[in-house]
Amino acid sequence: MSELGMRAEKLDAADELAGVRARFVLDAVSDHAAGAAGVYLDGNSLGALPANVPGRLDDVVRRQWGALRIRSWEESGWWTAPERIGDRIAPLVGAAAGQIVVGDSTSVNVFKAVVGAVRLAGEGRDEILVDATTFPTDGYIAESAARMTGCALRPVTPAEVPEALGDRTAAVLLNHVDYRTGRLHDLPGLTSAVRAAGAVAVWDLCHSAGALPVGLDAHGVDLAVGCTYKYLNGGPGSPAYLYVRADLQDRFDSPLPGWNSHAEPFGMRPDYTPAAGAPRGRVGTPDILSMLALEAALEVWDGVPIEAVRAKSLALTDFFLECVAQYVPPGRVESLTPDAHEERGSQVALRCADAGQVMKRLIERGVVGDFRHPDVLRFGFTPLYVGFADVERAARVLAETLRGETLGG
Amino acid sequence: MSELGMRAEKLDAADELAGVRARFVLDAVSDHAAGAAGVYLDGNSLGALPANVPGRLDDVVRRQWGALRIRSWEESGWWTAPERIGDRIAPLVGAAAGQIVVGDSTSVNVFKAVVGAVRLAGEGRDEILVDATTFPTDGYIAESAARMTGCALRPVTPAEVPEALGDRTAAVLLNHVDYRTGRLHDLPGLTSAVRAAGAVAVWDLCHSAGALPVGLDAHGVDLAVGCTYKYLNGGPGSPAYLYVRADLQDRFDSPLPGWNSHAEPFGMRPDYTPAAGAPRGRVGTPDILSMLALEAALEVWDGVPIEAVRAKSLALTDFFLECVAQYVPPGRVESLTPDAHEERGSQVALRCADAGQVMKRLIERGVVGDFRHPDVLRFGFTPLYVGFADVERAARVLAETLRGETLGG
Repeated sequence: MSELGMRAEKLDAADELAGVRARFVLDAVSDHAAGAAGVYLDGNSLGALPANVPGRLDDVVRRQWGALRIRSWEESGWWTAPERIGDRIAPLVGAAAGQIVVGDSTSVNVFKAVVGAVRLAGEGRDEILVDATTFPTDGYIAESAARMTGCALRPVTPAEVPEALGDRTAAVLLNHVDYRTGRLHDLPGLTSAVRAAGAVAVWDLCHSAGALPVGLDAHGVDLAVGCTYKYLNGGPGSPAYLYVRADLQDRFDSPLPGWNSHAEPFGMRPDYTPAAGAPRGRVGTPDILSMLALEAALEVWDGVPIEAVRAKSLALTDFFLECVAQYVPPGRVESLTPDAHEERGSQVALRCADAGQVMKRLIERGVVGDFRHPDVLRFGFTPLYVGFADVERAARVLAETLRGETLGG
Repeated sequence: MSELGMRAEKLDAADELAGVRARFVLDAVSDHAAGAAGVYLDGNSLGALPANVPGRLDDVVRRQWGALRIRSWEESGWWTAPERIGDRIAPLVGAAAGQIVVGDSTSVNVFKAVVGAVRLAGEGRDEILVDATTFPTDGYIAESAARMTGCALRPVTPAEVPEALGDRTAAVLLNHVDYRTGRLHDLPGLTSAVRAAGAVAVWDLCHSAGALPVGLDAHGVDLAVGCTYKYLNGGPGSPAYLYVRADLQDRFDSPLPGWNSHAEPFGMRPDYTPAAGAPRGRVGTPDILSMLALEAALEVWDGVPIEAVRAKSLALTDFFLECVAQYVPPGRVESLTPDAHEERGSQVALRCADAGQVMKRLIERGVVGDFRHPDVLRFGFTPLYVGFADVERAARVLAETLRGETLGG
C-alpha cells in the first residue's frame, strides 16, 4: 500500500463522522468494470439515499395516502410540513426557527426572493446585481424578475459587488459556493456591504447548505434559497426552500401569492391576505411525497454538528488535492478550486483536456463525479458518507485513467 | 333492501367500469364507527391510491435513486419525465402529444399561463378577466400576474365573459368546473368568444380533467393548467401541468425561465434561449419521486375511455341526487349543482345548515366528502372507483345523519 493509502486508513480510523456513513445506502453500486465498491463523489449533484427513506416513504404512500387519505392533511401533519421541515433545515444554515419554508424548485424560489427583495428595497432602487459566474438558472430568473419589476439587471463577479453597489441597487443575488469552481464566497462581508448600501442580499445556498456553516442569522442575510437534493440528500428534484429573515417577513411581498400562503387558506376568500411568518413564502399545495422523503432524509443529521462536517470536508478536499498532486502527471490537470480554506466549498474542480471522455472512463471504473461544460471534472465531497480511502482511490483511478493505464484498482 | 338499493345493485352489475376499482387501494379504511367499508367521495380533493404506486415508488427510491443515483437522469428517464408524463395526460384532456408538460404546483402554472397569455395577446391589451367564482388561488395569482404585467384585473362570472370582452382584453382565466358548486362551464363557447375578441383563453382543468372529456385541441383552447391529485390520482400535492397549444409554443414567453426550459440546459450558458415545444414550460429540476408516482398512477387509465367515465359520472350524480331527493327530509339540503348534464361536473354540492358538523358526522360513519366554507357539503364522484351502491349508501347515511338517526348502515 502506498504512503497515501496508509495515511487514508489512519484518517478514516480517526474520523468522528465515519459512523454516519451507515445511515446511507451506498454499496449497492458495484456494477462498474473494476468490480470494487464505488466511490461516489457526486453528492453535490444528487445526494445518496439515506437508509431510512424507503421505509418512511412506503408508510406515507400506503398508510397516510392509501388508508387515511384526506385525513392525513391534519392527522399526518401534511399541511404543516413546509414550515416543519424548514425548521429542520434551519440549524444547518444557522437560522432560528420560523424563517424557512420548504416547497417549489430552487428556480421558483429565486423568483420569489429576487422579486421580494426588489419590493423590500423600495422605491427609487431599480437595479439588480447578479453573480455573473452563477449557475445559469439564477441569472435567467433574475433577468425575468428584473423585467417584471422594471429593474435593470447587471451581471458582476462577486468581487466586483462592493464597487458596483449604489443608491440604485435594489437587490443582489449571489451564490455562496460557485457550482463550477467550488469557490466559497465571502457571505459575511458581501452581505454587510449590500446592506450598508441599502440594498437587499439574496443568497443561493445550493452548494453550501449541508457542507459548511452558513450563519444566515449571524451574518444578517436578508433572503436565501437553496435546494435539498445535494448535501441535504432529499432525493432527485426534492423541494427547495426559502429563508426570509424574521424582521422582513411582515414586508415580504411574494410574486406568487398562492392560496397556501393566505392567512386563512380554507376561508376561500376572494381577497388575498398574506399569512404571517415563513408560510408567506408558500404557494400551492405542497408536494407531500417528495417533502416527507426529505423530512426522513434530514434525520441523518441527528447529532451531527455542521462544524464537524466542515472540518472533515476541508480535510477531504485537502487530501484529494494532495493525492492528485502526487499521482497525476504534472500539467495534466489544473485545479480551479481555491487552495485557501476560507475560499473553498466542498468540491474540487479540475480543468482537464478531454474532460467529458475522462469522466466517462472514471465512472466506468466506479469513481463517480461529473463533467461540467466545457472542460471541468467536478468532484463533490460529502463528509457524511465519503471517507479518506475513497478520496485516495479516486485520485489514483484518475491518475491511471489519465495515463491510459488500468492497473491497480 | 330498498328499491333504490336494488337499483344500485343492478347498476353496479351493468357497470362496464366496475372492474377498474380493483386497480385502487380502497378498502383499507374501515376505522369509522359503523365498521362497514367506507365510501370515498372526496376524490375531487385527493384521489385514492392506485395499487401499483407503492411498488413503483419503492423501485424509484431503492434502485433508481439508491443504486443508480445520477445515472438515472438518463438511464431511468428522469430527465424527460415532465414531457413524457404530459403526453400520458394529453389524451385524457383531448390534446395531441407535445403540448403538455408536468411540474410545479397549479398556482405556479397559473402564473406561467396568465403572464404568458398577456404576452401572447400583445401590445395594447391590458386587462385580464378572471372568473369571480374561481378557486381562490387562481384569483390571487391572476392579480399578481396583472400587477407584474401592467394589466388591470377584472373579476366577472363566466356568464358575463362574452359581454366583458373587448379590445383591451388580454387574457381570460376560467375554471372548467367550479370547485364549490360543481358547475361545468361552456368551454367551447367561451373559448370561441375569447378568441374572437383577440384575447387568449386560459382554462383551469383541476376539477374536470379525468372526470369528463375536455377537448383542448378540438375547441381551440390556448393555454390550460390542471392539478393531478384529484381525478388523476397522482397523490397528495403531485405536480400540476401546463398545456400550451402547439402553434403558440414558439411565442410562449414564460415568466419563470428556469434552466430546465433552456434549449440546451447543460450548456450552462449565461444567455437564455428557450427550448422548443412543451419543455419551454419547465422551470427547475423536476420533482422525480412525486412525478414518477404520478406516472404509475396514470396507468389505471389503460383501456379506459374518458367518454365512458363521463357517462358513468353523470349516472352516479343523477342517482345521488335521486337518492337524496327520496331519503333526505324536504328542505333540509339544497343542491347547488346544476340539473342539466351539460352544466354538471363530477361532484354534487349541497347547501346545508351546519354543514361543517354534518360532514364531521358523515366522516365518522365512513362517508367521506368535504366541507367548503361556509355551508357546503361537497361530494365528488370518481367513476373509476365509486359504484352505485356507494352512492345509495352515502345518501342514506346523509339522510340518517340529518334526521339525527344512526339506524341502518
